[in-house]
Amino acid sequence: MRAEIVSVGTELLLGQIVDTDAAYLSKLLPDLGIDMHYRVTVGDNTGRLADAIRQALGRADIVFTIGGLGPTQDDLTKETVAQVVGDEMVLHEEAAEHLRSFFASRGMDMPESNLKQAMIPVRGRVLENPLGTAPGAAFETEDGKVVIVLPGPPRELVPMVKERVIPYLKERIGENTCIIRSRMLKIAGIGESSVEDKVKRLLSSANPTVAPYASLGEVHLRITAKADSAAEADMLIDEMDRKVVGALGEKVVFGRNDDTLESVVVKSLVARGLTLAIAESCTGGLIANRITDVPGCSETFLAGVVSYSNNAKARLLEVCEQLISEHGAVSVEVAAAMAEGARRASGADIGVSTTGIAGPGGETPTKPVGLVYIALSNDEGTVTEKFQFAGTRMDIKQRASQAALDMLRMHLL
Amino acid sequence: MRAEIVSVGTELLLGQIVDTDAAYLSKLLPDLGIDMHYRVTVGDNTGRLADAIRQALGRADIVFTIGGLGPTQDDLTKETVAQVVGDEMVLHEEAAEHLRSFFASRGMDMPESNLKQAMIPVRGRVLENPLGTAPGAAFETEDGKVVIVLPGPPRELVPMVKERVIPYLKERIGENTCIIRSRMLKIAGIGESSVEDKVKRLLSSANPTVAPYASLGEVHLRITAKADSAAEADMLIDEMDRKVVGALGEKVVFGRNDDTLESVVVKSLVARGLTLAIAESCTGGLIANRITDVPGCSETFLAGVVSYSNNAKARLLEVCEQLISEHGAVSVEVAAAMAEGARRASGADIGVSTTGIAGPGGETPTKPVGLVYIALSNDEGTVTEKFQFAGTRMDIKQRASQAALDMLRMHLL
Repeated sequence: MRAEIVSVGTELLLGQIVDTDAAYLSKLLPDLGIDMHYRVTVGDNTGRLADAIRQALGRADIVFTIGGLGPTQDDLTKETVAQVVGDEMVLHEEAAEHLRSFFASRGMDMPESNLKQAMIPVRGRVLENPLGTAPGAAFETEDGKVVIVLPGPPRELVPMVKERVIPYLKERIGENTCIIRSRMLKIAGIGESSVEDKVKRLLSSANPTVAPYASLGEVHLRITAKADSAAEADMLIDEMDRKVVGALGEKVVFGRNDDTLESVVVKSLVARGLTLAIAESCTGGLIANRITDVPGCSETFLAGVVSYSNNAKARLLEVCEQLISEHGAVSVEVAAAMAEGARRASGADIGVSTTGIAGPGGETPTKPVGLVYIALSNDEGTVTEKFQFAGTRMDIKQRASQAALDMLRMHLL
Repeated sequence: MRAEIVSVGTELLLGQIVDTDAAYLSKLLPDLGIDMHYRVTVGDNTGRLADAIRQALGRADIVFTIGGLGPTQDDLTKETVAQVVGDEMVLHEEAAEHLRSFFASRGMDMPESNLKQAMIPVRGRVLENPLGTAPGAAFETEDGKVVIVLPGPPRELVPMVKERVIPYLKERIGENTCIIRSRMLKIAGIGESSVEDKVKRLLSSANPTVAPYASLGEVHLRITAKADSAAEADMLIDEMDRKVVGALGEKVVFGRNDDTLESVVVKSLVARGLTLAIAESCTGGLIANRITDVPGCSETFLAGVVSYSNNAKARLLEVCEQLISEHGAVSVEVAAAMAEGARRASGADIGVSTTGIAGPGGETPTKPVGLVYIALSNDEGTVTEKFQFAGTRMDIKQRASQAALDMLRMHLL
């Protein structure tokens, strides 16, 4: 079974919006045994949209359109699909009622033109929209193909896909199909080229396949298996997972799928009953922000201090001013004193600190942009590491936060 | 002049990566007078990639490919383009040298297979890659069209586009063409539907056009004008800009184009010679992180405290423990005491604080998830506002940081 996505919207073509919908939908299809070969984006133009849908129906069994279901004259997707597949549309009374009560609940009169949102195909099926006014629809062609019409706003698309589209597809496809499953291995503390070097032999495997992706301070390896059943695919993936871990060593593979460095660190701290405090200079709150993105972090995270000024380092972290004037705020000595100060000020078991030069300004002859010291302090003492990162201000903040979280993770292993 | 983008990569088709490159590139084309009608995504498959490039060349004058320039067997873009346009490739000695020294600087031997990254078209032109190993290239077809081949990693693509591709396109297109320019107006403190309501009359303008986009806690209005010259287009945009500001009021339009709420706030604080400290509970460092994303923020930002535990509120911000036990940590009283404590601890002119329930856990019968108090303190006193936000943990953090920054911005006006 093969699918194609047609994303509709001039704002997508103009780059005003990044197409996260298509990525979301694409991720779900392999699990249903659905392959994808092409994805197309077109503007709000009936002729070109019709061409794209016609071409997609020529290459695929299932075509998804995303966007263009709104009430305005620009929103043409349903009308265009109906024309291409040769179907009529009728008013869906329930959807019309839903629209009317939506407007009534806001004390507004509904313009009659909005009723187009409640039009649905005669041969097809409605896909209810739990969180919006425009329902989706599945149009069926005479040769047994289907065009599934979805709304553009992610907060409407995501629940509609979960609650309506996936059950519809499962029913349509049946159970006797080849399954594609994948798992993402998350790797830190080792560069992309070293990872590729160590797993080189595995990268040429045909089933499962292994593909590397690099992001700032992290490498991901995607393992994808095809099999007749989910259990069989998972078995193939488990086996490859073990091979990757064997080739890279256990410590650097920090997680899988939705795991993040911060979620793994929080889980590990909670499991060990340890508490954490962070003192940040160059990362400016990014580490605390990442930690507090994890639900339940309040069990372990006590406090963060963003000591951007020297005065704040002295007052909030009791970093001795003489230390700063002697070694500079960006120094191994101040990093250590900040981590110790964070522990003292919060009573936490572990203190982690960063001090460095995020740029673009602020460098000195001996301290270039990207120089960062990271310290970790606990009741056994304090260790410090020196890093030299490259990139923009944001890159350096991100890489430093990554290094600090990874240092903490390795310490907890 | 018309362009089409072909994004290449199985990881894009599988939704493992969101295509920010295509959005970035698309945004720049209108300013050069280049229209776009289609964008296509294909996997790492020569046959389908060749088909997509052939079709794009049939519809457009300029085709951009993004991705597939790496050293591995999966990376096929340049070879495929050469085949489609009927060109040969030769080794570019300078690029080969760059590759060798890249590996040498890391103490590694370069596999001979990597040399394919230094192959360039005979008829075309090299586009140097300042930040990576794989140069891009412009392939020229016999009928005067061009295929511009770009690398996938955004940190390589962005500088290459800025420094090589735009000058190349300007030279190629010449000056005598219709110009499309746009400006994004950034709006805060007013909801999307109110914005649309107030500018409704302007949304039907044909040139310039006005289109609204909503993100968490912000509304953007894009004004796009077509004209014979940049100056004329800018004049049309200026005029519409004034109309929008007239309809919405001056205070809510906080910036334009690359302005962010945090950059505007930092600029305004620096201009007034005021210093800032932040005390965050539910936002967990996000506000400090946003402020410190702005280069030069150290002129105004003294310190942030992420007082996640009650103990940290007491020790770092001198919030009286009795106040917490009487009113709870999420209360107007504690918010005020935190903002005052942040000022006191750092010596800053202004203190801003947040305390609330980001969820998913932690709610009580009287304090639901999404309840947030924000306080602002200066030498004239302390003001507090109560908010009720909806959404996920991340949404609530983002909306609360947005509300706090906007409260600070309005205070500075």
